[in-house]
Amino acid sequence: MNDFVYHIPTKMYFGRDCLGKLSNEMKGSGSRVLIVYGGGSVRRTGLLDRIKDYLKDDFTVFELAGIEPNPKIGSIRRGADLCKAENIDIVLAVGGGSVIDASKAIAAGACVDFDPWEFYGGPRRPIEKALPLYTVVTMASTGSEMTCGAVISNDETCEKLGRGGFPVFPRASFLDPQLTFSVPRFQTAAGAADILSHVMESYFKKDVDFFMLDRMMEAVMKTVVANAKIVLEEPENYEARGNLMWAASWAINGLFGGGSRQVWSCHPIEHELSARYDMTHGLGLAIITPRWMRYCMKTDPDTKQKFREFGAAVFGTSDEDEAVAALEKFLYEDLGLASTLKDAGIENTDAADMAASICKKGKINGYLPLDEKAVTEILEACV
Amino acid sequence: MNDFVYHIPTKMYFGRDCLGKLSNEMKGSGSRVLIVYGGGSVRRTGLLDRIKDYLKDDFTVFELAGIEPNPKIGSIRRGADLCKAENIDIVLAVGGGSVIDASKAIAAGACVDFDPWEFYGGPRRPIEKALPLYTVVTMASTGSEMTCGAVISNDETCEKLGRGGFPVFPRASFLDPQLTFSVPRFQTAAGAADILSHVMESYFKKDVDFFMLDRMMEAVMKTVVANAKIVLEEPENYEARGNLMWAASWAINGLFGGGSRQVWSCHPIEHELSARYDMTHGLGLAIITPRWMRYCMKTDPDTKQKFREFGAAVFGTSDEDEAVAALEKFLYEDLGLASTLKDAGIENTDAADMAASICKKGKINGYLPLDEKAVTEILEACV
Repeated sequence: MNDFVYHIPTKMYFGRDCLGKLSNEMKGSGSRVLIVYGGGSVRRTGLLDRIKDYLKDDFTVFELAGIEPNPKIGSIRRGADLCKAENIDIVLAVGGGSVIDASKAIAAGACVDFDPWEFYGGPRRPIEKALPLYTVVTMASTGSEMTCGAVISNDETCEKLGRGGFPVFPRASFLDPQLTFSVPRFQTAAGAADILSHVMESYFKKDVDFFMLDRMMEAVMKTVVANAKIVLEEPENYEARGNLMWAASWAINGLFGGGSRQVWSCHPIEHELSARYDMTHGLGLAIITPRWMRYCMKTDPDTKQKFREFGAAVFGTSDEDEAVAALEKFLYEDLGLASTLKDAGIENTDAADMAASICKKGKINGYLPLDEKAVTEILEACV
Repeated sequence: MNDFVYHIPTKMYFGRDCLGKLSNEMKGSGSRVLIVYGGGSVRRTGLLDRIKDYLKDDFTVFELAGIEPNPKIGSIRRGADLCKAENIDIVLAVGGGSVIDASKAIAAGACVDFDPWEFYGGPRRPIEKALPLYTVVTMASTGSEMTCGAVISNDETCEKLGRGGFPVFPRASFLDPQLTFSVPRFQTAAGAADILSHVMESYFKKDVDFFMLDRMMEAVMKTVVANAKIVLEEPENYEARGNLMWAASWAINGLFGGGSRQVWSCHPIEHELSARYDMTHGLGLAIITPRWMRYCMKTDPDTKQKFREFGAAVFGTSDEDEAVAALEKFLYEDLGLASTLKDAGIENTDAADMAASICKKGKINGYLPLDEKAVTEILEACV
């Protein structure tokens, strides 16, 4: 059992039409709002207009559209410049994890006079200040609405890097499960795989167990498995969408870390895939995770015990190989995600070259240490 | 699935010797600190001296000792007056739930010019302001360190009433499981019963289920059962003490409510017992809860299903009567708590009179509605 500090200042609104509280909640923070969003879906669904309508009496609204999945530093620079030019008081993210992550970097970038990439690469400057950030969540996946971290990609350096700081915790996040009804099948499935992976990365740790947190993580993993299946059958099932949405926030908000070292295994590997191929993050994780499990059990039989516990708690099987098989069935059959890189449309991958890039600053010291050779082996199994 | 707002601004420090961070954390809030505590145990264990030593360079320290279990409005008045007389900036609670609850009422009472009982009885004025509150937790039980509620007793009116308000959320709470090593066997057991009851009161609800929250509540109930047994065998088992301590905070911090009506059943009955007989809260709950379960199942067989789920998740039995029996075994054998009011030293109780008092404002609209007759029946079974 490790020492830790748990502190989430974000006010979480959950439920039908909670957006009605948005304007009131933001009022104390200023009057000039930059709404940040991604592609056309928030326009198409009418959500953007609804939000603008909620804000029209008390705010002057600016827009930054076109945040890409795996958001790029170019968008961050554009957003930070806009904030400075227009004296923006508040950043309002409307979207999924990419939009929220981008909004965090924009909110921080607006308060400094250096290039916002310097938060991520190079000097890795600390985030000491940010514009107040609010979020309206449209997808159950990254949990960014309840964390102070953000992952940003840089095409020039081919890097995808994470960075956090207390000032970019959202002041309030608005979670209306109805807003996720229209998320397409593939994105819903990839989101579920992402949530599950966040919990698994915390659950499989080498340092110490924490009974209560392990049981709570099992609770959330069961929630994802049970409710993702329902949602794919019934996209407008409010309860199931709501369960996935709340699970996404809790999967990664720091509670489950419980002070353990939290060096993740599959995420660093996947970040290389999405940096190179602009792959959907959750899909990449779904392809990698079962291979990583097999690698662990083969390399260190001591890991089998924890994989058995995972299988028993989440899938009701007490055999470690059946646990992997059950996870594969969930990811590739129930969720219908591609099971190989080739099926995901990515061919001619160079596993060794990717592994070299992933391990360029040393091995991944996660559940098992993964050096270049190990990462190559895992990636080769993904082809 | 209901709408809700989840917002806990409290910064939670957890771990060995986290008190070292106390002074730094409090610095921004002022320089004149009132330390509030209960009986002699914080003096006897040296904790009070350690804290004063941590604070000596940056704070002027005042003390309010003698907060009683089931804290009395007289102590609150005394504390609020002291805060006003000495221009106190910060209230620091050092103790269990009674001390923390009292400190909340004192912190709020210090900011008003009316009698602090008016927050609770009579006009039930809202808590709109409070001195900054910090807590050092010495017992795993009420979870008051992570909520904005406080229960205060009034001997004159024979009432025990709860009241909450955002301003009395602790700014930071410090949880070092080592501080609970010296909690006596009986208080440890009663604390465990209290934690378990908090989760059960949320778990058994009539309105709607929330899959993820139900699974998380089962996780915490399992944690209490498994770790309380260990702690009674090995009072200095850090892991087990830590699990109980963190479980106490989460059992009642609002997450598990999930917007459900949260009208509790056993707590209102118990509050009458502790108001009349100054009974230890957790012990009262331990006596009442199994009787309440039996009453529910007899009165409305539809409730059996949920009691079966409870039994399966927490005790590994899928029969509802076995679930009650397993809970009784845990409370009365494993924890060693008294199983009747008589064994707890309370004789000649008048169940009907207590029931009349409990229901004087109407029936308890909890899991099942409990009118005077129902409460009488439950209390008669406790004798």
